[in-house]
Amino acid sequence: MNQQKYNFRAVKPAEIEALSMAMIEKELPHPIDETLAPIIKRVIHTTADFDYADNLVFSENVVEHALKTLRGGCHIVTDTNMAKAGINKTTLLKYGGQVSCFMAEEDVAAEAKARGVTRASVSMEKAAKIREPLIFAIGNAPTALIRLYELIQEQQIQPKLIIGVPVGFVNVVEAKELIMTAGVPFIVARGRKGGSNVAAAIVNALLYYPGD
Amino acid sequence: MNQQKYNFRAVKPAEIEALSMAMIEKELPHPIDETLAPIIKRVIHTTADFDYADNLVFSENVVEHALKTLRGGCHIVTDTNMAKAGINKTTLLKYGGQVSCFMAEEDVAAEAKARGVTRASVSMEKAAKIREPLIFAIGNAPTALIRLYELIQEQQIQPKLIIGVPVGFVNVVEAKELIMTAGVPFIVARGRKGGSNVAAAIVNALLYYPGD
Repeated sequence: MNQQKYNFRAVKPAEIEALSMAMIEKELPHPIDETLAPIIKRVIHTTADFDYADNLVFSENVVEHALKTLRGGCHIVTDTNMAKAGINKTTLLKYGGQVSCFMAEEDVAAEAKARGVTRASVSMEKAAKIREPLIFAIGNAPTALIRLYELIQEQQIQPKLIIGVPVGFVNVVEAKELIMTAGVPFIVARGRKGGSNVAAAIVNALLYYPGD
Repeated sequence: MNQQKYNFRAVKPAEIEALSMAMIEKELPHPIDETLAPIIKRVIHTTADFDYADNLVFSENVVEHALKTLRGGCHIVTDTNMAKAGINKTTLLKYGGQVSCFMAEEDVAAEAKARGVTRASVSMEKAAKIREPLIFAIGNAPTALIRLYELIQEQQIQPKLIIGVPVGFVNVVEAKELIMTAGVPFIVARGRKGGSNVAAAIVNALLYYPGD
């Protein structure tokens, strides 16, 4: 049988992740900070891309801030329904948290069209009205980060954490550099790479962080 | 203002994608097949990873087969809710299609646990009972591809297309090689890379394919 030819590893479903993480650990291009390791390794687990051992940038003590916010119950806002779908809602709910994405809402689309801005930009304004501790998980739209930066400057919003990992070619690199200057705790994938999957992986890495 | 410093391109929301695609076209490491280009470029657009110019493998005439199936109305099955969330349902519905993911269903989890197999494996068995033209978009679980291979060998299922792009470290490379021998049209990301985002991007590239 063909299956034999490929030498599948006999591994129980529950063991796959631990084995993957051990392989990632072994193949890391260089040692990584112990506090940041669970996040970096989960992003590599999600992408099989070791570039993330180098391009993730963390503000000072960001993990400590993030865990405090997440474990105290918070509202996570994403810029794609994919990122929302990828976040572990069971664990988030356990901490009293919730996750929203406003991108597909009709009023957001209508307003964006009328004003000639992106839906992501309008979504951020909508999120700014939420009166709970806020975490942003941005995996797609650089305009979300640009609008967040402006809202922070205008003191309309004070996010507890911005996960800034949009992917792409137009204004993405620049928007990520900008958000790192906003004075808010951040985790950013510097450069073009990122994505909704990366945004969700970072949230999940924080949700699964050891030492609860 | 800081924003000035970063030289954002003045580009309208509707133009971002076309500009991104033009940049990708220009940076491709080598010329790519014209028929496959819309798929390869959309995956690079989704990941900012030019490795996909080389690691995507296509069975013969797969685009032609896939378009015929998609445009005739079909049932797409994914192995994550993220991939399901990322597929353009409006366009899919226009063609009379639908998309399902069985991973989070309680009976699937219970049966997987009882049998000591993955939920992905049980999900594929559930999908095999669907009596409509089937496309699989697998971005996460190598066991989904292994089970699909077995179900095809047992003549329990005859998918019209398998998008086999799970990401990861354990049995992923091998499962992708296996599915390419199943005798079913495929699009596979050879190697470790892939993901739910890549699976959704490939479906969307086919949904948006020119010449409808």
